[in-house]
Amino acid sequence: MSVELDLVPAGLARVLEELPLVDHHVHGACAHDLSRTAFEEMITESDRPVPDWMTQFDSQLGFAILRHCAPVLGLEPFCAPEEYLARRARLGVDEVNRLLLGASGVGHFLVETGYRGEELLGPSGMAEVTGVPADEVVRLESVAEQVAAAGCGAGSFAARFAEALWERTRTARGLKTVAAYRCGLDFDPAPPAPAEVTEAAGRWLAGGGGRLTDPVLVRHLLWAGLERGLPLQFHIGFGDPDVDLRRADPLLLRGLIERAAPTGVPLLLLHCYPYQRQAGFLAQAYPNVFFDVGLAINHTGARSTAVVAESLEVAPFAKLLYSSDAWGPAELHHLGALLWRRAMARVLGTFVAEGEWSPAQAERVAVMVGAENARRIYKLGAGR
Amino acid sequence: MSVELDLVPAGLARVLEELPLVDHHVHGACAHDLSRTAFEEMITESDRPVPDWMTQFDSQLGFAILRHCAPVLGLEPFCAPEEYLARRARLGVDEVNRLLLGASGVGHFLVETGYRGEELLGPSGMAEVTGVPADEVVRLESVAEQVAAAGCGAGSFAARFAEALWERTRTARGLKTVAAYRCGLDFDPAPPAPAEVTEAAGRWLAGGGGRLTDPVLVRHLLWAGLERGLPLQFHIGFGDPDVDLRRADPLLLRGLIERAAPTGVPLLLLHCYPYQRQAGFLAQAYPNVFFDVGLAINHTGARSTAVVAESLEVAPFAKLLYSSDAWGPAELHHLGALLWRRAMARVLGTFVAEGEWSPAQAERVAVMVGAENARRIYKLGAGR
Amino acid sequence: MSVELDLVPAGLARVLEELPLVDHHVHGACAHDLSRTAFEEMITESDRPVPDWMTQFDSQLGFAILRHCAPVLGLEPFCAPEEYLARRARLGVDEVNRLLLGASGVGHFLVETGYRGEELLGPSGMAEVTGVPADEVVRLESVAEQVAAAGCGAGSFAARFAEALWERTRTARGLKTVAAYRCGLDFDPAPPAPAEVTEAAGRWLAGGGGRLTDPVLVRHLLWAGLERGLPLQFHIGFGDPDVDLRRADPLLLRGLIERAAPTGVPLLLLHCYPYQRQAGFLAQAYPNVFFDVGLAINHTGARSTAVVAESLEVAPFAKLLYSSDAWGPAELHHLGALLWRRAMARVLGTFVAEGEWSPAQAERVAVMVGAENARRIYKLGAGR
Repeated sequence: MSVELDLVPAGLARVLEELPLVDHHVHGACAHDLSRTAFEEMITESDRPVPDWMTQFDSQLGFAILRHCAPVLGLEPFCAPEEYLARRARLGVDEVNRLLLGASGVGHFLVETGYRGEELLGPSGMAEVTGVPADEVVRLESVAEQVAAAGCGAGSFAARFAEALWERTRTARGLKTVAAYRCGLDFDPAPPAPAEVTEAAGRWLAGGGGRLTDPVLVRHLLWAGLERGLPLQFHIGFGDPDVDLRRADPLLLRGLIERAAPTGVPLLLLHCYPYQRQAGFLAQAYPNVFFDVGLAINHTGARSTAVVAESLEVAPFAKLLYSSDAWGPAELHHLGALLWRRAMARVLGTFVAEGEWSPAQAERVAVMVGAENARRIYKLGAGR
Repeated sequence: MSVELDLVPAGLARVLEELPLVDHHVHGACAHDLSRTAFEEMITESDRPVPDWMTQFDSQLGFAILRHCAPVLGLEPFCAPEEYLARRARLGVDEVNRLLLGASGVGHFLVETGYRGEELLGPSGMAEVTGVPADEVVRLESVAEQVAAAGCGAGSFAARFAEALWERTRTARGLKTVAAYRCGLDFDPAPPAPAEVTEAAGRWLAGGGGRLTDPVLVRHLLWAGLERGLPLQFHIGFGDPDVDLRRADPLLLRGLIERAAPTGVPLLLLHCYPYQRQAGFLAQAYPNVFFDVGLAINHTGARSTAVVAESLEVAPFAKLLYSSDAWGPAELHHLGALLWRRAMARVLGTFVAEGEWSPAQAERVAVMVGAENARRIYKLGAGR
Repeated sequence: MSVELDLVPAGLARVLEELPLVDHHVHGACAHDLSRTAFEEMITESDRPVPDWMTQFDSQLGFAILRHCAPVLGLEPFCAPEEYLARRARLGVDEVNRLLLGASGVGHFLVETGYRGEELLGPSGMAEVTGVPADEVVRLESVAEQVAAAGCGAGSFAARFAEALWERTRTARGLKTVAAYRCGLDFDPAPPAPAEVTEAAGRWLAGGGGRLTDPVLVRHLLWAGLERGLPLQFHIGFGDPDVDLRRADPLLLRGLIERAAPTGVPLLLLHCYPYQRQAGFLAQAYPNVFFDVGLAINHTGARSTAVVAESLEVAPFAKLLYSSDAWGPAELHHLGALLWRRAMARVLGTFVAEGEWSPAQAERVAVMVGAENARRIYKLGAGR
């Protein structure tokens, strides 16, 4: 279900082309040059070495890089991977970042800093390269792990975490949880009792802290995050092999969504593939639920049109956002925005071509999903 | 995957346009005028107040109303919601119902009366407004709740329910269960023993009756329904937040489907979104299983083509039906029929355009799904 | 989402038309003539009698037979089922097989012999009729059941099975497990201890052997298969009513996939419908996972384009294969290949038409999925 881009109504095409997107969940661009091996490992969610009988360039994401990023670096579309990587190396990471991030047309980045952030540009680095605002989204689990690493007793963990969270989020726009990776989303939705938290913290700290996976602690972080009151992002669905995809189904959050409603905190379901329809149902049913299909847009490449289309089914249009979930190579930041614009143009253009939507409706929904909804939820102001 | 409507073979377009549908699962149209708030709350499955930063008109269903119902009320397509609601109020509910229901081209309504039926037109009211037959589908749980409300001891519950069910269904065409809402579909498929029923009834009645959620009683109702022998409809999948969508997966009914086969009772899986492919599998595997994608057609609007297409995969064409599941505003009755006709025209038209189906096959399948299958299952006679 | 076949780039169309496919999971063609009843029962996965109020010809698969197989037998497309079956009977099974298998353009068959193989052509029969190589894939559960049937004590079962497996697979190219049918995929992924195997074998053999469903024994077979070292095929998803589709979700194999990685054995997920996106995720995440959408292609007919499209999302292109899973009527072998070629032409042709892929990329991916990946995995040599 799609139309050729040259059949998209001109007004809609222009709106989508020029819209300064809010990328409401993204990581920093890579700050150093990359070998072919390193680059290939960053364009897959797999954390295993790439087998020698294949290349990650033979994927939707790989093809999208050769199609859309090559011209930004001054090459022909569909060049060979070798040619692409040679050009990339010759330009150097700073120029690559400048070109690809600059051409993405993103108007505001919300940068999640909790995953190997030291290898990447931080929010200020992103703002410097792109010339647009970049604010921080803080990962709850990382704050807790830093509290443990700094040394902390079980009995003081909850208080220390609360202090650290407040300190780390003074200027942050949102919080993020990777509960899906750490214990699965099928946890007890109730906040744990203080004594349970102390006991679980004792077990964890006695083991030296490190990766926090105890469901009691994960729940404590979530509820502390809800109390902090910033919009709360959830990793959902598609990700690296660390995730048990069955336990990353957004429907598992039903109990938490209902219990969290009185806090008034917006809950943002990220990625969601292949559960985008389930996420859409939750976004219709519950006023406090929002979602995106970030990450999946990059990884499905030429098929991202289908994923975006499925996200535009039962959710009210005020409940859908844009993100790239890019991490590392600036190709991912660039493609997230470019593929989303193309997919929206095709999907909304089809609705118009079929006579189901007016061009004005399509333009308005494009702006809501691409920027306005995020500006309202994260209180970003009117934008440029 | 769709073709423009003007590319649909003329014969198929005409067949679909003129087909008197059997809407095999629908509720009554609203019998009173509606405020904007009330109207918006009836065009979503959410039971929460609509937040002040959004409107339900900004949804696929909202857009479909402005596109397709506005002209029926004498307005331009894509008018503003305010204009639409003002016109609606000026016409008054009787005229709105007459116009929208009349233009739906439905030939026979099977009206489920068990959910807030007192606010809506009943079967006779629907027949009167539309001039076509309207028969009743009786909700099992409502009959049981009425038995409790009328006063009943635990030991006599089963007998009283059996009597009441017989009484209430003398002229009914089918039964309906909302087990998915009440206890989830992951219940024990075996009929409960009489002593278990008495015990469960005792607990329920001691609590004053009311909303029936005990799985033992739900199972008893189901098996009593199977014994009654009318076609039995199941709420599946998409619905209001009362449903845990994970526990509304039709695959959970496998055990019951197998056990119920000897009764010869047709089991009709309603709505099914986003599990339409799972429903299709059950409809291929089991002769006693049928399904539709009602409700989802309205709520996915311009995307209903995709949902209808997914329902036409592995199920034999004798196993698929049409329903709107409309409840309340006559817009829902109207759109259910209109969007189904358009979706079928596009999906079957694509099969023909691609050379995979003949026009005659497409026309025949349209008639089977839109009317004939329901006429056979519910023994409705040949229709007009 | 598809283009007319006459809009597919000519080079891609020719590559797909002429590609000698590797059908990496197929059963033999039926070696005897078939009554209408028998034929209809073989074109559905249902194992129930076809009700007298319907015909299996009224399905996507039935329509595809009348559309695409009729011309191969010298009839007009879209002829009546009666005409088709009369022609089929007049030609006789040998000629039908010769015509349909010959026109499929398959270059190499990997024939799974474990399900009612005695009614079908074996690998040598398939090779004889088609003039191309046909190798065997051995079903683990069948080997075990033969060991039991030949008489075996509990204590010697493991050793006898190992011997028999080695003997039966001297020239085999792969192994197959139907764990999904026998105990569901939610089994403990660890290899069972020898004492557990002996105990479970004792229970099974005391009951006379027969259909092997004990999860301990199924796990033992799997691990013995991994030790044997041939590529290992898993039934996943769609199949006959014997399967609980919820317990045939490929995500349930996560634990086994991770534990089996060190063996280096390729794990091939077959069919996968409606879990093709879940399979794609596993194929991206884990180097040892491969998959296909066989069986579903035949059963979704005109809709197979959508299923193939969904299989081309997040999996690297080196991880996807072609199979028909045909069993019995040679129509299934023929259609599997024909519908796959058409679906790939439409899906990849759309990527090219939309400017997202180059024609050369599309041609290369077609060859990888249709033949090269299987040749590499099963070590089949370069092909013709």
